Amino acid sequence: MGVEQRAPENIRSLATYVPGKPISELARESGLSAGEIVKLASNENPLGMSPMARRAMQEAVHGLSLYPDGNAQVLKEVVGRHHGVPDDCIVVGNGSNDVLELVARTFLSQGSSAVHSEHAFAVYPIAIRAAGARCIEVPSRNFGHDLAAMADAVAPDTRVVFIANPNNPTGSFLPGPMVEQFLARVERDVVVVLDEAYCQYLPSALAYDSVSWLERHPNLVITRTFSKIFGMAGLRVGYALCHPEVADLMNRVRQPFNVNSLAQAAACGALADEEFVARSAQINREGMKDLEEGLRRLGLRVLPSCANFLCFRAGCAEAINRALLKDGVIVRPLASYGMPEWLRVTIGLPSENERFLASLSAALKGHDV
Amino acid sequence: MGVEQRAPENIRSLATYVPGKPISELARESGLSAGEIVKLASNENPLGMSPMARRAMQEAVHGLSLYPDGNAQVLKEVVGRHHGVPDDCIVVGNGSNDVLELVARTFLSQGSSAVHSEHAFAVYPIAIRAAGARCIEVPSRNFGHDLAAMADAVAPDTRVVFIANPNNPTGSFLPGPMVEQFLARVERDVVVVLDEAYCQYLPSALAYDSVSWLERHPNLVITRTFSKIFGMAGLRVGYALCHPEVADLMNRVRQPFNVNSLAQAAACGALADEEFVARSAQINREGMKDLEEGLRRLGLRVLPSCANFLCFRAGCAEAINRALLKDGVIVRPLASYGMPEWLRVTIGLPSENERFLASLSAALKGHDV
Repeated sequence: MGVEQRAPENIRSLATYVPGKPISELARESGLSAGEIVKLASNENPLGMSPMARRAMQEAVHGLSLYPDGNAQVLKEVVGRHHGVPDDCIVVGNGSNDVLELVARTFLSQGSSAVHSEHAFAVYPIAIRAAGARCIEVPSRNFGHDLAAMADAVAPDTRVVFIANPNNPTGSFLPGPMVEQFLARVERDVVVVLDEAYCQYLPSALAYDSVSWLERHPNLVITRTFSKIFGMAGLRVGYALCHPEVADLMNRVRQPFNVNSLAQAAACGALADEEFVARSAQINREGMKDLEEGLRRLGLRVLPSCANFLCFRAGCAEAINRALLKDGVIVRPLASYGMPEWLRVTIGLPSENERFLASLSAALKGHDV
Repeated sequence: MGVEQRAPENIRSLATYVPGKPISELARESGLSAGEIVKLASNENPLGMSPMARRAMQEAVHGLSLYPDGNAQVLKEVVGRHHGVPDDCIVVGNGSNDVLELVARTFLSQGSSAVHSEHAFAVYPIAIRAAGARCIEVPSRNFGHDLAAMADAVAPDTRVVFIANPNNPTGSFLPGPMVEQFLARVERDVVVVLDEAYCQYLPSALAYDSVSWLERHPNLVITRTFSKIFGMAGLRVGYALCHPEVADLMNRVRQPFNVNSLAQAAACGALADEEFVARSAQINREGMKDLEEGLRRLGLRVLPSCANFLCFRAGCAEAINRALLKDGVIVRPLASYGMPEWLRVTIGLPSENERFLASLSAALKGHDV
């Protein structure tokens, strides 16, 4: 018997995560130059990286032969001050992907289950299955989380619930009080992960303070990332805020040097860069408006979004996507999210949004939406 | 019941990896300035980072708002050419720690076991237990791996064997033919991990070509790191070479963006920097000789080492370690490796080695070895 046949069944049947196509890959495939390609596929910040983060990173480039601080002491102090929580409530990750996986590996195993929503972030079911646990996928409601159904779906063996707010890839949003209500309803021995990767894009009227809930809900794990509004997806850093005893367990499972030195330094700079965050949110709001109008002008159904991307129904999405790629525009097909007729586009710079709309308009002419 | 009580028993009882003390931590604790501190605790390269790696990294600093290439295509091509293996035999990791853990998570689960040696790398038992499997620790032989006993220890439920060659923390070495013999003896449905983190420090008379064994042994997984001789511990990158079907499984478990963009770029530069590798090996050989002589002059027992560090018996190692720290010298106590009377010191620059020996000599005067 080949050694690969000896891997557990949950591993052998694991789906591969499908990322947005990298610019370099399309360049290789299409013969286009990297400069001709517009990537609006991975919800990256079109303004680039926070300048304060970049400066902080440059100051750290001289110690790279040494291991990173495995405890990320300085970063945890900065994050702690930012949120008003003590260091021992923080778990750092190689992106928030790492933190999400740490929750799964810490609390899930064969014989337990985890609840997540349909059309939610693809990493949840992959992390649940890789840990050997069972996925309980709850049908979405208007492409968003149905919290009442999710609470009902919690089984006796359920150890974790994943909630993305705003949700990727649909952009749906749950008002803070609804999430708090959910926390009050779910048993306290079930971990509730609140994935807030996109929370800084919320208009102030919708913003809510989940960190203040930690005291009353020791089963809450809030996850954040530096990959989105802080513009640091290439550096890999994110974190969780949670009860110290939960953090202690996750830190034992965590690889000792999971966050590289440059990412730790840059993240400290990024959190201080309020001007960059405000500017990024502003350009996102404006671009969102333009893109939404443009998509509707093309007669397409668009889901309301509270994040930095829009989902639109493109009918034969696969063919449209192929046409866009041929034209050097990368968006995200959502077949692997159970939405085969939809595409997701990241809000870009005005010029990128225009380029995308023009390209899409041309592509649609050849197809029946 | 608190949510932390709901984590599986293997997670709740997991030991924490104890890393070398970071310079910043000792500086905070002792009041010494970072410049006064010598760190010889984590087997880092005292020459710093490969200059070619640094240049390659600098060229990549502009795209950090974009996600890394999740497939690490360019890096895999470079690694593949370097070893003469196709891309689909390569799995990249956030350091080789990540790759070692991927093997555990891919092949181990509740009800299976893995074999490793006493006094071997601490990450093996942590990764095995975190995956829910049982550790079979085989007593060492002269502080090295006892391959015959390890082959005998393979149980019907054993899925993985970990071999470090040279071994960390003891520096012991198994000649290539002995490892090949072991491979011939072990059933082909047991994964044999050959951790070669320190292989570039081997004198040419001892070097062996494990990559050529891959064709005959589809259960072999060779792991390599850029943290040691390439001087890139702070950037986090390593890889595995293995059978394509094994790589495919590990790549499904792997986080899609586990290796950051700068590490990918730098690693490509590092592999080409033969001059730096040769110089690093040379300075290590010279420093090893000086340190070994110095330690013996102090009347200490020293284990023969084929890597970039030395283990010596310090009797009341804890007190000696405290005295060294007070003097600004960081080495590695080995209590967590089952060697409470021993310390491990990394070969540094000549000035660092002298500083360490002087500091140790003074520390020993107050203690009975």
